[in-house]
Parts: sequence; structure tokens; C-alpha cells
Amino acid sequence: MRWENLTQLKSYSKLKEAARVDVPAVMSGESGAERVKGYDIPMGGGLEFNYAARPVSEEILDILQELSDEQELGAKYEALYNGERVNTGENRMVLHQLCRGQLGNDVFDGDVNKREFFVEQQKRVAEFAGKVHGGEILNEKGEKFTTVVQIGIGGSDLGPRALYLSLENWAKVNDKLKMKAQFISNVDPDDATAVLYNVDIEHALFIIVSKSGTTLETLTNESFVKDALKKAGLDPSKHMLAVTSETSPLAGNPEYLDSFYMDDYIGGRYSSSSSVGGAVLSLAFGPEVFEEIMAGAAEEDVIAKNTDIRKNPDLLDALIGVYERNILGYPVTAVLPYSQALSRFPAHLQQLDMESNGKSVNRFGEPIDYKTGPVIFGEPGTNGQHSFYQLLHQGTDIIPLQFVGFRNSQMGNDVIIEDSTSQQKLSAGDQLTPKSLGALLAHFENKVMFQGFTWNINSFDQEGVQLGKVLAKKVLSKNTDGALTEYSKLLGIF
Amino acid sequence: MRWENLTQLKSYSKLKEAARVDVPAVMSGESGAERVKGYDIPMGGGLEFNYAARPVSEEILDILQELSDEQELGAKYEALYNGERVNTGENRMVLHQLCRGQLGNDVFDGDVNKREFFVEQQKRVAEFAGKVHGGEILNEKGEKFTTVVQIGIGGSDLGPRALYLSLENWAKVNDKLKMKAQFISNVDPDDATAVLYNVDIEHALFIIVSKSGTTLETLTNESFVKDALKKAGLDPSKHMLAVTSETSPLAGNPEYLDSFYMDDYIGGRYSSSSSVGGAVLSLAFGPEVFEEIMAGAAEEDVIAKNTDIRKNPDLLDALIGVYERNILGYPVTAVLPYSQALSRFPAHLQQLDMESNGKSVNRFGEPIDYKTGPVIFGEPGTNGQHSFYQLLHQGTDIIPLQFVGFRNSQMGNDVIIEDSTSQQKLSAGDQLTPKSLGALLAHFENKVMFQGFTWNINSFDQEGVQLGKVLAKKVLSKNTDGALTEYSKLLGIF
Repeated sequence: MRWENLTQLKSYSKLKEAARVDVPAVMSGESGAERVKGYDIPMGGGLEFNYAARPVSEEILDILQELSDEQELGAKYEALYNGERVNTGENRMVLHQLCRGQLGNDVFDGDVNKREFFVEQQKRVAEFAGKVHGGEILNEKGEKFTTVVQIGIGGSDLGPRALYLSLENWAKVNDKLKMKAQFISNVDPDDATAVLYNVDIEHALFIIVSKSGTTLETLTNESFVKDALKKAGLDPSKHMLAVTSETSPLAGNPEYLDSFYMDDYIGGRYSSSSSVGGAVLSLAFGPEVFEEIMAGAAEEDVIAKNTDIRKNPDLLDALIGVYERNILGYPVTAVLPYSQALSRFPAHLQQLDMESNGKSVNRFGEPIDYKTGPVIFGEPGTNGQHSFYQLLHQGTDIIPLQFVGFRNSQMGNDVIIEDSTSQQKLSAGDQLTPKSLGALLAHFENKVMFQGFTWNINSFDQEGVQLGKVLAKKVLSKNTDGALTEYSKLLGIF
Repeated sequence: MRWENLTQLKSYSKLKEAARVDVPAVMSGESGAERVKGYDIPMGGGLEFNYAARPVSEEILDILQELSDEQELGAKYEALYNGERVNTGENRMVLHQLCRGQLGNDVFDGDVNKREFFVEQQKRVAEFAGKVHGGEILNEKGEKFTTVVQIGIGGSDLGPRALYLSLENWAKVNDKLKMKAQFISNVDPDDATAVLYNVDIEHALFIIVSKSGTTLETLTNESFVKDALKKAGLDPSKHMLAVTSETSPLAGNPEYLDSFYMDDYIGGRYSSSSSVGGAVLSLAFGPEVFEEIMAGAAEEDVIAKNTDIRKNPDLLDALIGVYERNILGYPVTAVLPYSQALSRFPAHLQQLDMESNGKSVNRFGEPIDYKTGPVIFGEPGTNGQHSFYQLLHQGTDIIPLQFVGFRNSQMGNDVIIEDSTSQQKLSAGDQLTPKSLGALLAHFENKVMFQGFTWNINSFDQEGVQLGKVLAKKVLSKNTDGALTEYSKLLGIF
């Protein structure tokens, strides 16, 4: 396998020379309409990827295909899902796709078949959720639990929260909302206090999510919640479960009703497909809804195997993004879902993309001389139109946009105004369902992976976060007052 | 008054030549500690503006002072608050500061004293809120209203929502939460449906906010809510009030319990200080809390009059931002509140800044050849640390950061872990109160204004938003299916 820097590739030099595209011109008239029809690829879950309005021509697409071949992006994906340790610095496999399907060979860690391990965990989660929903697991008074509260930060929060919010109203309308979910993440005590204020604590189950079992913010919030439970005369061990690694202090600990496992081969920002997302979403919506999300993601993972970039929306989105970043020099990308249910999806993508590809050394630790991951930001689209679109329309920088939209609303409730329903005002695409949501999740995960391979960086470590944790502990051990100042000073990036 | 482009200024040429600052170096050791103490300016509401970690030296500060003098930033602010029509393209005064205090001369529109007009509106809002809280205005069954729902989009949503969330928990703890507030903004029917799902509609008051009374998204949501009220057997005119301009179809309309007025001199993104924020916040927290917010903002507005940049945090923040944008070339700024209560404040700032200063023509409509407003994004800080900070630490671009933090939590509820309370882990600064919140709001409004003056652009029009509205209507009138495609095509900025 070749692991070359982007600028070493022959196709990259060709890409620089390719004629630029005048997007408004190529999008006009009949040939524009043809382009809209032609530049469209089917995705998983009934979604479509339309790239007609992005700055590519047939010439550029041909060179991007060459680049994909030269950088062996398909082979690298294959290596990843067959269990090669592509997270090199940390010497780890990258197995989030394995949680939702088997793409290639069996993957072993020692003599553990990892696919079986993940299936087993999800089976245990499903059984646990079934017992909670069925009334076999009850609170101290013998009453049913009605709320589930996830306590975690970063990937243990953003992905599961975005997915929960994406389906909360769909679940209400379709009678799938088994338990309402809430999330505590910020170490700011106002966050936990506010959530607890709104929760019927007697009927609440709390999931502590920490892979290592030592994440400072999460343990702080856990002890905060334990205090609240005790104050309410409740036994914390009857209200808490843990999602952690098998070797952590939280695993199999009698302080919890049960514990479910992920492992070091699932990065935090990719962990929605593991028990980190599985436990809270199975409790909230039922295990079969979580399985649907995973089925949509698995469908997208299979599509991502295609080495023809014109048939692989994840790969093509990645390559066009590289073109926009490295050739056109755009530093920021906006993600604009035309769906209120996806209100926190941009925050999840922000972590997924920026934490994965915000790197300035290649996978061998050598400094690189080209740009990698852009800044990602976004808000639901119709709101954005009344907000920051001014700068997108008329500012001095060009910001690539990614719209996400659906043909039908989730709740089937609509109103006619000015000869169109409000949903008609929104967009094209099908409904946001568990399956299309899973495909959307996987699309962006795969895009980020392909970009990381293209840039020859390790998208799966998180040295910056580790650095932050070390600094926070170091500063706290000495002097709490100056924490931020010290932290900013060490950052040195104002 | 001089209205010169930035690049025409002598001081701008000097700024380009000034020696760059090595931030980690100047922040180290004892001289670094001195810098942290010295580069600190008192703000309104007990806040402090610390710029020690930003890339400025005494030499650069001196040139920024020259630039401020040469571009007459102080005089332009004075002209604005004395009622000059600085929103030139739209030929309008800019009077949001007048809602919260009188900074200069009386301001007249014809023979209307505008300060008296705004005071009168807020008095009417306060009386109305008093009647609702006191039980004089009741629902059809003679019961008290318990919830207020604001229906608006853009500035009618983002600012008021951010302010409400900033104080919701503070209000709970301090027994100031008179009514819970909710917000409907997105035209996606799932947004309104979801809010109505959670609202006790019989005891809910709805505020329709639209200056023109013709905003499509807001009217769509209004008719949606009216349908829901009727379906529940309720009389919409007993559940709705309007915030609008005196000349709009909503004004004095018997379909509403009452109507309160703002005018064309209050831009949407600056409207939190008018009835747009006043009505919902006075109903939620009581008029005296809204007055406290305004008092904090007024305090900051007075500080912003100082023409010595080292004593004016709003002006200095603006100028350092210009230095970062135009000399250092940074395209993005992150705002990172270390306070969960400020979770939606970055979304408000995104609109405020990007809609005001995302312009590529100067105030005379001539194209300019330098960068203006950057992309603004942000999330609460401790969450960000576990998310996109990776790119801030180790990505290939430099992203200026603005931290916002407070010494004490709002809810006084805390927990000791690893020898420090969780609040100690957060930051320095006082508590987030109505007054400090008002000062923070005004700080950023004033910063954006000073940057607009520096760039010689009109920060107070919104041509991009108007364009979006026109395009949306145009496309809807023909063919709803292709709306997004058409829209994107016309944008041409993928």
C-alpha cells in the first residue's frame, strides 16, 4: 500500500492545471437541467447525493478518479474494514463499520471475533431495553422507568444526541417513543442541574458513558447525579448503567444495574454505532429502531466500496471537498439541513470532521505542507437564511455549502399557504427515517475517512483532545483560578 | 465625516509593516503574567475584557489607535446615536441603543421623539406582562397563562432565544421564572409540531413577531398555530399578541390581544432590545429582569463612547478583529462560552456578525478589495474541547478564539471532585446575571458596528436576506419541486 502525501501525487499536479468551472454558467438553461439530473448518485436509505452545483467538470472528475486510484483510496478502505491497524500512531484497528455489518473478512483481536463481540453487546443492550420496556427492570417502588439520561461528553454526547433529536418527533408520531432521552455533557454544573430540574428522577435511568472510566467531566457529572439520587432517597445502583470498555473500573461494577462494552477500536466520534449510541437509542426508541439506523448505515458502507467515484457518493464528496480545500483554497464548509429534526447534526459533523482531519502532520508524524480539514459549521437552513446567509451570498469569501433535505416532513402535519405546503417550501428528498438517518451518518463518516486517506493523515487519533485533557489536569493540580489563561497561553493560537 | 475604504487609510499601510507578535513568547514567564494583568479592560455588568492572548503589541495598539482616529470611529458612533441615517442604502436611522438609554441628543423622526416611543412601548409591554402575571388577563376558562411561545425567524428568534436560555435556570433558582418560554422559527412543520406537542396550549400565549407583518415563514407558522388552537376549541384572538411595526397589517388588529411596536430603525438582529425581546422576556421573567438586561447593555454603550481604544473593549475588540482578518488573514473566528447557559449565544452572534458585516461592497455600493466579516462559529467550551478543538490545536489554519466565562455558576449547585469544584474547572469572571448578559450583548453589537465603520460597509442593511426572500417567493410561484436547486443555482456558491 502506498501512503503518499497529497502533493507527491502526479494526479494532484494535474488537478492544479485543470480548467476551473464557472458554476452559475454550467447550471444555466437546459444543459444546467441535464447536469442536475446527471450529477446525482443513489445513496443508502433512499437518499440521493446531488453534486450538480459543485465546482467540477468531467475533466476534473476524471482527474479525481485518477487521484483516487493513485492514492489507493478503495484499497485503504478495504484494509480498514478487514482489520488492518490503520490508526497507526495508536496502533489500533478502526471498527465502527463492523458494529453495523460485515464488509469483508472476519476481524480478530487475538482470538476474539470482533463482529461477534459487537453483535453480542447489542444483543445484551436489546435484552436490557426489552426488560425495561416490559417492566422486568423497575425502580425501587416497582414502577416503570420513563426517562433515560445519557451522561457523556464529546462523541459520547454529540452523535447520540443528534441521532436522538433526529428521530424524537418521528417516534412520537409513529408510537415508537418508549422513553424520553436527555443528555448531560458540559462540566458546567448548570448543565446537569438544568437537566435534573426537568427530569422525574424517581423514574429515570442514567447511562454513564466513558470508555476509559476516567473522563473527568463525565465522572464529575456522575457524582453530581449520584448526589441528587441520594438526596431524593434513591439508590444510585438501581438507576445507573455503564457503557465502557471491558477493562475500565466501571465494567461489571455492582454500582451499576449492568454494563455494556465498546473498545479502543471505536473512536468516540464514531461511537454512535456501538453501545454508546445503542444503549440510549434502544432504550428511547426500542432496539428495532436502532437496528434500522444501523441497516441504513450498513447500506451506505457497502456503496462506499465502489471504486468508481461517479458511483460512490462518500468517496466523491470527499474528493470534491479536497478539490475545494486544496485547489480552490476554501477554508470553511457549511452544512445546512433543511429539516428541524437535524438541528444538532451539524454539531456532530463538526466534531466528526474537525477532530478527525484537523491535523498538520501526516500519518508518520511528519509535518505536511498543504491544508487538511476545513472548519465545519451549520444550522438548520431556513433559519440560516434569516441569519448568516447574508455572508454566504455577499461576503468576501466563498463558502462551499452542503444542503440536506427531505421531500416529506416527519410528522405528517402540514399547512397550505401561498399555494404550497410548508414542506414543499423546504426541499427534495424522502422522509427522514431511521434508515435514511443511518445512511446520512455513514455517508459523512466515510467521507471523512476518504479525505483522511487522501491527505495521508490519521483521521482516527485525537492528539489535540488528549493534549487538552493533560493540560486541564495539570493546571487543576496547581491552581484553578488561572486555568483558562494557562490553557490559552499553552494553546498560543489567539 | 470621512467615509474612506480601509485600504485608503495611512494607518492601514503602517499596520501592514508593524512587527508581528509571537503570542506564546509574550505570554510566557513573569512578563506574560504582567501582560495578562495589564491587557484587561473593565466592561459593563462587572465583566472584563482580557486581550492578553491576542496577537497585539504596544506598537500595533498605537497604530490601531491611529486607525480608529483616522477612520473617525468615535465620531461615527456619535453620529449613529444622535440619529444620523447611517443605514444609508435604506436611508434609515439605527436606534437599537436608544431602546436602552439616551446616549446623546434627543432623536426625532418627524415630530416623534423616538426615545419616548421606545419607552412607551416597553411600558405597555410591562403593563401587559403585569396583567398576565397578576391574573387580569386570563384564558377562556379564566385560568392563568403558564407558557409564552414566540413565533418569529432570524432576529425575532435567535437573540431573544439566546437571552431566554441564558437566564432560564438563573430565573428558576431565583424564583423569577414567571412563564416558560418556547420558540417556533423554522418553516419546517416539524418545528411547530414539536413545540405544540410539548406545550399546554390551553395555557399558552403566542407572540407573532414580524416587523412587516408579511414574513412568509412566520405567517405560515402563525396559521399553523391558529389551526391548532381552533382544533383545541380555543379562540386564537384570546391567545395571541403581535410585535410588529405600527403600519403593518398585524398592528391594532382585533385578531390579537394586543400589539406592541418596533420600527424600521431597529434591525432584526439588533431587535432584542426592542419589543421583539422585551415582550417575550418580560412575560417569561418579569419586566424588571428585562430592564436589568437593558441596564447592562446601556452601561456597555456608554463605555463604547471612549475614543481611547485601551479603555474601550468594544472598539478594541473590533480593531483587533480587523487586524486578525485583514493583516493576519484569518477567515474564521470561534466564540467559546464556558457556560452552558450561553449555548445559543454563538448562533445569535453568528447572525449578528455575519449578516451585518458579510458584505463585499462599501457603503456607497462600490466593490471593495479587502476582506470583511469572517465566519463566526462556536459551541459551549468544555463540549468543544471534546469536539472541534483538535483542529484548533493542530489543524493547518489559525483560528482566533474568543472565550466567555464566569467565576460562579448560575444555580449555586456544585460538586467537589479532584480538589476543585466543577465551576472552578471552568473559568474566571463573575456570574452570568441579567446585567452582565446585557453588557455582553451590547459588547458584540458595538464591536460589529465599529468593524463595519472600519471596513466602510453598511452593517445595518441585509440585502442578502432580502434577495433570499425574493428568490424563495419567485421560485414558489412557479414550481415548488425545484426550489432548492433553483435557489442554489442562483446562489452559485457551492
